[in-house]
Amino acid sequence: MSRQFLAEGLELSGGDYSIVAVVAVVALAALVVGYFLLKEVLAAGQGTSKMQEIAKAVQEGAAAYLKRQRNTLAIFGVVVFLLLLALPAEDVGERIGRSVFFLIGAGFSFAIGYLGMWLATQANLRVAAASREEGGREKATRVAFRTGGAVGMATVGLGLFGAAIVVLAYAGQAPKVLEGFGFGAALIAMFMRVGGGIFTKAADVGADLVGKVEQGIPEDDPRNAATIADNVGDNVGDCAGMAADLFESYAVTLVAALILGSVAFGTKGLLFPLIVPAIGVITAVIGVYITKAKSTESGLTTINKSFYISALISAVLCTIAAFVFLPGSFAGFGDSFAGTEGNPAVIATFAVIIGIVLAGIILWLTGYFTGTEYKPVKDVGKSSETGAATVILSGLSVGFESAVYTAIVIGGAVFGAYLLGGTVALFAVALAGTGLLTTVGVIVAMDTFGPVSDNAQGIAEMSGDVDEKAAQTLTELDAVGNTTKAITKGIAIATAVLAATALFGSYQDSIKQALQDVFAKGGDPNSVPKSFIDNIVTPNTLVGVLLGAAVVFLFSGLAINAVSRAAGAVVYEVRRQFREIAGIMEGTARPEYGKVVDIVTRDSLRELATPGLLAVFAPIAVGFGLGTGALAGYLAGAIATGTLMAVFLANSGGAWDNAKKLVEDGNHGGKGSPGHEATVIGDTVGDPFKDTAGPAINPLIKVMNLVSLLIAPAIVQFSVGPDASAGLRIAIAVVAVLVIAVAIVVSKRRGTQIADTPSDTPAGATAS
Amino acid sequence: MSRQFLAEGLELSGGDYSIVAVVAVVALAALVVGYFLLKEVLAAGQGTSKMQEIAKAVQEGAAAYLKRQRNTLAIFGVVVFLLLLALPAEDVGERIGRSVFFLIGAGFSFAIGYLGMWLATQANLRVAAASREEGGREKATRVAFRTGGAVGMATVGLGLFGAAIVVLAYAGQAPKVLEGFGFGAALIAMFMRVGGGIFTKAADVGADLVGKVEQGIPEDDPRNAATIADNVGDNVGDCAGMAADLFESYAVTLVAALILGSVAFGTKGLLFPLIVPAIGVITAVIGVYITKAKSTESGLTTINKSFYISALISAVLCTIAAFVFLPGSFAGFGDSFAGTEGNPAVIATFAVIIGIVLAGIILWLTGYFTGTEYKPVKDVGKSSETGAATVILSGLSVGFESAVYTAIVIGGAVFGAYLLGGTVALFAVALAGTGLLTTVGVIVAMDTFGPVSDNAQGIAEMSGDVDEKAAQTLTELDAVGNTTKAITKGIAIATAVLAATALFGSYQDSIKQALQDVFAKGGDPNSVPKSFIDNIVTPNTLVGVLLGAAVVFLFSGLAINAVSRAAGAVVYEVRRQFREIAGIMEGTARPEYGKVVDIVTRDSLRELATPGLLAVFAPIAVGFGLGTGALAGYLAGAIATGTLMAVFLANSGGAWDNAKKLVEDGNHGGKGSPGHEATVIGDTVGDPFKDTAGPAINPLIKVMNLVSLLIAPAIVQFSVGPDASAGLRIAIAVVAVLVIAVAIVVSKRRGTQIADTPSDTPAGATAS
Repeated sequence: MSRQFLAEGLELSGGDYSIVAVVAVVALAALVVGYFLLKEVLAAGQGTSKMQEIAKAVQEGAAAYLKRQRNTLAIFGVVVFLLLLALPAEDVGERIGRSVFFLIGAGFSFAIGYLGMWLATQANLRVAAASREEGGREKATRVAFRTGGAVGMATVGLGLFGAAIVVLAYAGQAPKVLEGFGFGAALIAMFMRVGGGIFTKAADVGADLVGKVEQGIPEDDPRNAATIADNVGDNVGDCAGMAADLFESYAVTLVAALILGSVAFGTKGLLFPLIVPAIGVITAVIGVYITKAKSTESGLTTINKSFYISALISAVLCTIAAFVFLPGSFAGFGDSFAGTEGNPAVIATFAVIIGIVLAGIILWLTGYFTGTEYKPVKDVGKSSETGAATVILSGLSVGFESAVYTAIVIGGAVFGAYLLGGTVALFAVALAGTGLLTTVGVIVAMDTFGPVSDNAQGIAEMSGDVDEKAAQTLTELDAVGNTTKAITKGIAIATAVLAATALFGSYQDSIKQALQDVFAKGGDPNSVPKSFIDNIVTPNTLVGVLLGAAVVFLFSGLAINAVSRAAGAVVYEVRRQFREIAGIMEGTARPEYGKVVDIVTRDSLRELATPGLLAVFAPIAVGFGLGTGALAGYLAGAIATGTLMAVFLANSGGAWDNAKKLVEDGNHGGKGSPGHEATVIGDTVGDPFKDTAGPAINPLIKVMNLVSLLIAPAIVQFSVGPDASAGLRIAIAVVAVLVIAVAIVVSKRRGTQIADTPSDTPAGATAS
Repeated sequence: MSRQFLAEGLELSGGDYSIVAVVAVVALAALVVGYFLLKEVLAAGQGTSKMQEIAKAVQEGAAAYLKRQRNTLAIFGVVVFLLLLALPAEDVGERIGRSVFFLIGAGFSFAIGYLGMWLATQANLRVAAASREEGGREKATRVAFRTGGAVGMATVGLGLFGAAIVVLAYAGQAPKVLEGFGFGAALIAMFMRVGGGIFTKAADVGADLVGKVEQGIPEDDPRNAATIADNVGDNVGDCAGMAADLFESYAVTLVAALILGSVAFGTKGLLFPLIVPAIGVITAVIGVYITKAKSTESGLTTINKSFYISALISAVLCTIAAFVFLPGSFAGFGDSFAGTEGNPAVIATFAVIIGIVLAGIILWLTGYFTGTEYKPVKDVGKSSETGAATVILSGLSVGFESAVYTAIVIGGAVFGAYLLGGTVALFAVALAGTGLLTTVGVIVAMDTFGPVSDNAQGIAEMSGDVDEKAAQTLTELDAVGNTTKAITKGIAIATAVLAATALFGSYQDSIKQALQDVFAKGGDPNSVPKSFIDNIVTPNTLVGVLLGAAVVFLFSGLAINAVSRAAGAVVYEVRRQFREIAGIMEGTARPEYGKVVDIVTRDSLRELATPGLLAVFAPIAVGFGLGTGALAGYLAGAIATGTLMAVFLANSGGAWDNAKKLVEDGNHGGKGSPGHEATVIGDTVGDPFKDTAGPAINPLIKVMNLVSLLIAPAIVQFSVGPDASAGLRIAIAVVAVLVIAVAIVVSKRRGTQIADTPSDTPAGATAS
């Protein structure tokens, strides 16, 4: 089952082309549905002029950030485009296709992010406005959820459309081109997650440190120069970053399924992984339209119900599709499968259902560990009575524990699909991934809900034009948003594991193929260095596992540190404005909001470079320096540690945030009590956990996997056969290490750490 | 290079026996030196009667704890003894030897722990007394360091003696018997680390929450009912647990080197790994005796100097030994090595030097990240000006970063030894481990220094019989102790990686051997299930890696949670005493110290069961349930994530502790400032990090490795050949999972969480 098989005989028949074309049409239909949802959102009322003025400032700030980010990333994109052109390829068509579709994947990823952000900034205002009307709760929920629906439709529509086009255009060579497409999507998504994550938390933490703590003014108070930046942050982080991330999850999982599908099932293997998400599109539409807030149930219940209903419909439709499109025995795929046991339709059905069930379990687990109505968050809330230290420790425990259960569930899904799949085990794992994908439309809708509600609350607060009942509605929506955000992160990391496990198979395949190519050109099979052995018990593989785990720790530390540095700059600027602009505190002068937005924009774009370079260059260093066996270990270590770390960071952060909300709702002393202060400390620690470091680990894993897949043939070429050159290999590894080292040193020397801000700090200031 | 080779021809010659006998004599000599150091310590002055009274209470409490722990562990030991008897073995001698030496290893581990604790409780008082005399700083340092020297000599003496005896008695079968010896040492050490860690931090956190925070009385105030328990905790955790842990590190690393040495080099391979640590004994004696405090340099500089000098001497002596005892080419080992390239003496020399250099680098790295005079801790201290949240975040960053660099250095050492070793790569890794061992004597001496100084300060404070200059001396010694404690943890985790990597090789070997045995009995080679493949890119191996990483997270979470539960019980009891015993606050009535000691003893012995059962049963569940390939992945995941997590927890905890000391020394507002409060919160979070969860990960890794090694033949036996039974395998796995699940559920339902303590909490209490 090597790639050889692919290049030889894979041709799509006329009927196959029609099916792919239908899938492409379904994808376009998703975009059309998204457009109608968008129009519905834009048609909603826009509230008072004060509200509009604030919303406009947020819109402008967010657009300015994304514009500058686009320019930064464009340079990066061009460099990678050229590097991809230089990598070994079978022919010119593959070489160009891979690079061009890298750009298309990157472009789509950015476009989805931009759309998500733009629409959210439009919707914030309208949700705030809706909350003031008669039946405000239902109306506001509807606008918020429809906004998410529009972004969700765009995510699945573009992802599916891109993949279908590649299959139509490249057929047999689709897998290599898809690697480019997935890599583009993942790379840009990672940058948008990291950059947006740094932006949102630097502004948030900076605003709180000066506003709430030093000056004693409430959150979202218009006298705080960082408030607009804070709200801009919600949009560029939670909306743009999240949408790009989920698009990337969608695209890469689909890419993995298509690559392995073509290896396992031939042509049919390129079709079925497209049919499953096409079904997902249909059920997502249903899921979005059936979501109606009722006054008798909580917002989370409403959303969960839609999720479970659409998941059930997906499972039924996918089962039907499997039995219609797949033969009942492997002999149906042609002579080469004659002796293979098992029923492809049954395997495919159960694999997809494993993915769908996995999504459901993660939804439930995350809700349990981060929801205000369950024991874990209640325990964290209670621990506030003995102070901040116990709040931190109990939140960390919740994070550790939830990470373990989530990892076991994901591992169980992988192992289940693997056992089920028999000879096509890897493809079964990938199909489980496509099963997860059928839920992405609804998941994006759920997630977008969070930041939109959060911002609506911000606009309401700043404008002062919202009465108490409406404010209560918005607060409730915001708490639901905290949990849905954590759920999305859980689902995203699950796609990372499934996609990475599947891609891992292609990694080995790619190395075998490259070795065969080298031997064909006269390389000596005996010259294969021992560092090519990917047996896990060899020391070089084990060192790889250790380094893979280390990269996850380093990446997390860098991201958290970047927030601290960027927040320091915000603190400094806001203090300067309070000091130099007379009348801010009295409300007679307006702070220069734009200045703070500019500073955070500049800093977060600068800060995203180091973690980004680490993700791209670390696998290069390990692969060229230590060999493909160590690189295999490296990927395994990064996937395993990354999964646990991502869930740990997301869920402990979510638990602290909601524990604070519990106290603010009047428990354990309520607002202003020492217990409240303790949970505010917990929440501040959790901010960069859950919104910067945690969510960026998902695209990190995928970027590292795809980089490894892309460089594998080059490592082989420089290690064995006529082009072998230990010097060149080591030189590449050294350059990669130097790039990372320089980036780390530069970022350490740069910027103002919070702690470095000059001593105009009131001595008694305590962070929160 | 299978084990076959071993059983066939491995016989020690008369000359070989003499060498092993000399090693045994050196080991006994170490015990004699230890005895003289001990006598010197006991001869020192014992201060005032008040000091003696306090010391006696601590001694009694510690002895009572260890006695009850011994009884608990004895039951466990007997059960494991019987299980080991039941596991497959080549003959009756091996079967009985393995079980008996399990008990001996366990007994030695406990004895060292007991000795470390007993001697520390004797020394505390004498250090406190010495600080009051003329030239107090030099005298106190000397007593504290000589105490450590005595424990260090006992550690290396017993470890080396045990291993030498096994080699003398079992020759060819020594490896299997050594597995039992190492397992006994590691298992008991893990329990002592976990139990002692829970004890010390539950008492510490509990004492602080009620004493410092609620009642506003200083640390070590005799009116606090938990003070004696707090001081007992330092001894059972930092002394008994640490000494057992380092003994285990010593024994298991030596065991790994002997097992692989016999495989790689035949008889000489059983000799050289004994000669290296014998040299270490000699240099450790030198290291201990040259350590003399000078008034012109800091305590840490003095200790570091001794370390570096003794390491240098070790390197020189080991080089000489390699060239004297090992031939210049592999042909010297006999015909079977005729074609092998490389110079064994050179390989051995460099491998040992890699280990020694590794110890030096870790010493330096840890000192940098946790010492008060370097940037990281200074930054954490500075961040106290913006409050507790930034203290937590910056401490976490320090932990992440230091873990990454430490992991890279350890990985580099493994890879270096691996490249160097050629055909004997694994043995070279194990030899690097023995290089590390040459430093253990001095390391134990350095580490014991920490808790002895800490307790001396406690006794001084409680008795009130120490003047300001003497108190200053003790405070300085205590700060040095914080860093040396972190260093020990770094070295311990490095031994874990080297030993585990080496043992990993024997794991594979053991499976191959077991498979051959089964085939010889008529098993079908084609029936080997695919879950036996330990290729890292198969999904089952990857699931194993994920589960291995998850176990480390779960273990850490359980340990931290256990501290929180046990501390809750302390809080409750201390509050009760303040309420019910009239006159405590006025100093007219004495609190019931013994009650608190009893409670913590009971709770920590109960709490150690869950993490302990997890360590033993998780590999059983993975191995029997998912196969040996998944188990290989599991070990790799646990080693990699465990390394990073252990260093992260140890160093972030160390950094917070010393950041607090920085503030207490008058920086950033000094004692009583909001900055101090912020660092106290950081320190409280760090307590279970650095003293409970972090250090226990080292024995955890080794226990899991040795369990896997021991059960591997049984897994093979039940999977392939005449005894194969899927039902039995799954039944064993299910039982193992159930044991873990029940243990977790029971521990969750039990005991009083801090947050659950009744509402007599002053509403405004803030933890610290």
